[in-house]
Amino acid sequence: MSAVMGISILGYSSTVLAETSPPDTKRIEVRNDVYQSTFPEQYDSWKATSESKHLEDALAEDPNMVIMWAGYGFAKDYNKARGHFYALDDVRNTLRTGAPKDAQSGPMPMACWSCKSPDVARLIEERGEDGYFEGKWSRLGDEISNTIGCGDCHDTKSEAFERGEPALKLSRPYADRAMNSIHQPFEQQSRFTQQAQVCGQCHVEYYFSGPTKAVTFPWAQGTNVDQMEDYFDAIGFKDWTHKLSKAPMLKAQHPEFETWRDGIHGKNDVGCIDCHMPKVQTPEGKVYTSHKIGNPFDQFENTCAQCHTQSKDTMLEIVSTRKAQVLNMKLTAEKHIVAAHFEAAAAWDAGASDVEMESILQDIRHAQWRWDYAIASHGVHMHAPEIALKALGTAVDRAADARTKLARLLATKGITEPVQIPDISTKEKAQAVLGMDMETMNTEKAEFLKTVVPQWDEDAKVREASY
Amino acid sequence: MSAVMGISILGYSSTVLAETSPPDTKRIEVRNDVYQSTFPEQYDSWKATSESKHLEDALAEDPNMVIMWAGYGFAKDYNKARGHFYALDDVRNTLRTGAPKDAQSGPMPMACWSCKSPDVARLIEERGEDGYFEGKWSRLGDEISNTIGCGDCHDTKSEAFERGEPALKLSRPYADRAMNSIHQPFEQQSRFTQQAQVCGQCHVEYYFSGPTKAVTFPWAQGTNVDQMEDYFDAIGFKDWTHKLSKAPMLKAQHPEFETWRDGIHGKNDVGCIDCHMPKVQTPEGKVYTSHKIGNPFDQFENTCAQCHTQSKDTMLEIVSTRKAQVLNMKLTAEKHIVAAHFEAAAAWDAGASDVEMESILQDIRHAQWRWDYAIASHGVHMHAPEIALKALGTAVDRAADARTKLARLLATKGITEPVQIPDISTKEKAQAVLGMDMETMNTEKAEFLKTVVPQWDEDAKVREASY
Repeated sequence: MSAVMGISILGYSSTVLAETSPPDTKRIEVRNDVYQSTFPEQYDSWKATSESKHLEDALAEDPNMVIMWAGYGFAKDYNKARGHFYALDDVRNTLRTGAPKDAQSGPMPMACWSCKSPDVARLIEERGEDGYFEGKWSRLGDEISNTIGCGDCHDTKSEAFERGEPALKLSRPYADRAMNSIHQPFEQQSRFTQQAQVCGQCHVEYYFSGPTKAVTFPWAQGTNVDQMEDYFDAIGFKDWTHKLSKAPMLKAQHPEFETWRDGIHGKNDVGCIDCHMPKVQTPEGKVYTSHKIGNPFDQFENTCAQCHTQSKDTMLEIVSTRKAQVLNMKLTAEKHIVAAHFEAAAAWDAGASDVEMESILQDIRHAQWRWDYAIASHGVHMHAPEIALKALGTAVDRAADARTKLARLLATKGITEPVQIPDISTKEKAQAVLGMDMETMNTEKAEFLKTVVPQWDEDAKVREASY
Repeated sequence: MSAVMGISILGYSSTVLAETSPPDTKRIEVRNDVYQSTFPEQYDSWKATSESKHLEDALAEDPNMVIMWAGYGFAKDYNKARGHFYALDDVRNTLRTGAPKDAQSGPMPMACWSCKSPDVARLIEERGEDGYFEGKWSRLGDEISNTIGCGDCHDTKSEAFERGEPALKLSRPYADRAMNSIHQPFEQQSRFTQQAQVCGQCHVEYYFSGPTKAVTFPWAQGTNVDQMEDYFDAIGFKDWTHKLSKAPMLKAQHPEFETWRDGIHGKNDVGCIDCHMPKVQTPEGKVYTSHKIGNPFDQFENTCAQCHTQSKDTMLEIVSTRKAQVLNMKLTAEKHIVAAHFEAAAAWDAGASDVEMESILQDIRHAQWRWDYAIASHGVHMHAPEIALKALGTAVDRAADARTKLARLLATKGITEPVQIPDISTKEKAQAVLGMDMETMNTEKAEFLKTVVPQWDEDAKVREASY
């Protein structure tokens, strides 16, 4: 059968469909392989995200970030995302999720699975949001066994999907509510916006809220850097207390949906799909939506060149200039924020009081939030360089406020020399400065991957055998 | 005759030309009115720049700038530029050129005429560059009597111009040399680049160099903010010493050519003319190049809409967002730079030494240069918002460096409280803080305009009567 996604198929043949395994209409179908025969090109291109397998160690590339995330999981390790194919592996492998030995232990909550698997959609449907979110990350490790795939963006239970139509769906109710909160209810959107919204379930800013630590989008006041900062301040939220400065920190996740919509592509209704999931053809001329999400320049003719008449080299030069601009301002902001954390630590050591530190810590919180908002996302230099540059500029501003206050405060404690920053020139040195026991963390992680994870996989196999 | 500028005219009729006053081929024709009959539409549209007559007092809008330019002419007054029609009036009227009583007095050099009149091209041709530049601004006030016009961008002595062709020319030899220095010799450029280059004779960064204070473009190392900063540092140049901080300051003029070429329009070969001097039609359908230079949105269909398919409202929204981003970062940088000037003054007052201040003053110099590079030009939010935002971000960075050093230095002098910034909430208050005697300046200027200028005009009339 014809399996063009993104284009409605009229010539549907029930004979051919009968050869596939129709999903159980009672349950969200989480097994991506089930759709291999119904959507062969989409499936193959989705699977080809496995070619994006290189692990890039962001902390090794920029050890400043170890210091900026001191006391938080991201200081342990942080790799740039690989293909969707590896999402489940990577969340199991990262030191951030720790090495739980049972369903009640480990540092992270269930929320950390939320973007990694269509099993999340299934579990929420089966148990409700509280039933999914409550407890530790390890609690339902055996229930989450399929990497990001069909059921995350498509309504696998719909007849339309069975017919080979895309049948887009927000599979996460918290994302659905958030789109309502910015007056873009999913059901009332154009196909264009719906396409962006399904990506925006995960490529987005969120935090863990309430007793169950449920994923929540901080959009009640809007989606720009100021509005989300105001939101977090108003509810008094912090992700963690910084180990050095004791500032009440915010960790931006990856506000891509937010920065994209404020960037020039978003403002011109050019969405995620247009650049990252273009329509392509099989050798036989069959048109389908590529699910091999990656760098648009890798298939320039199907992406950029659909709108832009410039040469690939011209476009690459423009993008690389913007990338360098953002990187330069990123490092500039880090210089001041890292210094501010150490200077704040020195102030505490010198006997500073909570009252003396209060506005300084708020400045540090805001500076780092702005830095993180600007750079946490993939490709912000492409999506919205001016948004990133302004956020980074204001990050330097807030850090400068903190540092001038700190210099004066330190002086009242008798310290007028610059606070020395220790050698943080590598990830390992920066982690050592923070007294992080990486060896134990790595040993425990290896044990977890050797013992707990295989048991999860075994349990999942038994469970899915009954589907 | 057909008088399309920017398009070569083949059907030239010598009969019609005979009715006009052909320029003296021995002399650059400076009298704009001479071309009224040869180029009626171009002339009328040029004259229509007189409709842009509103004077916007930039210092009243943003009194921070009075402080930032303390000790320099721009703190006296600074109006946003009006139409080309008023260029000569405005340079005579501004307090910056003072109230010279004779050819040897006044604060400014001859260079201040350089962008105001085709007489400058004539004088340079007649007397050489040194013969034009040497001495005070008042020296040749009677020789410069025509506002920006034909002879500034067109070769009025060429047969092509007589024939009604544009015959573009760099009328300023220093601009010609500068274009060579960036490997864009005028004669070898496409018509597109030549069009931008004639605008780039004036809409550009320059400084006054050598014993004659000759206009010079600081492009030997390149045209971006870092390269020009490096250039000025390498030659140890300063425009003035800041009255408060004593920093060796640079005044950016208006690096529009530079920021435009690094912006997205410049990179796509969309030049000044395309947006500011579009081809338009007379009611009879005759096509000509409008010389009523202004905001492209005022003739959206002939400018933006030639390339962009979006609605005017959409485009306006995008541009206004970028304008707000740049304005926000401009004010953010000013907050820190203004504070740094006052803090440096306090450090001097507290007995700081040259050695202690050296790197601080360098930081202040660099911070303000970057701020000025970003915002001195018209429309940088349109031409290159990302260039402006990055320059402003690095301005905050340099100011933050200065301020943290100043806080520590002040502490060693016993000052640990924030340095109080006086009330500078209006232009008048800011000027009063600096002890500027505006009343005397205004009185003297009025006298100059009543006595000296009419004499200049009279002398010019006599001189031109012999042309």
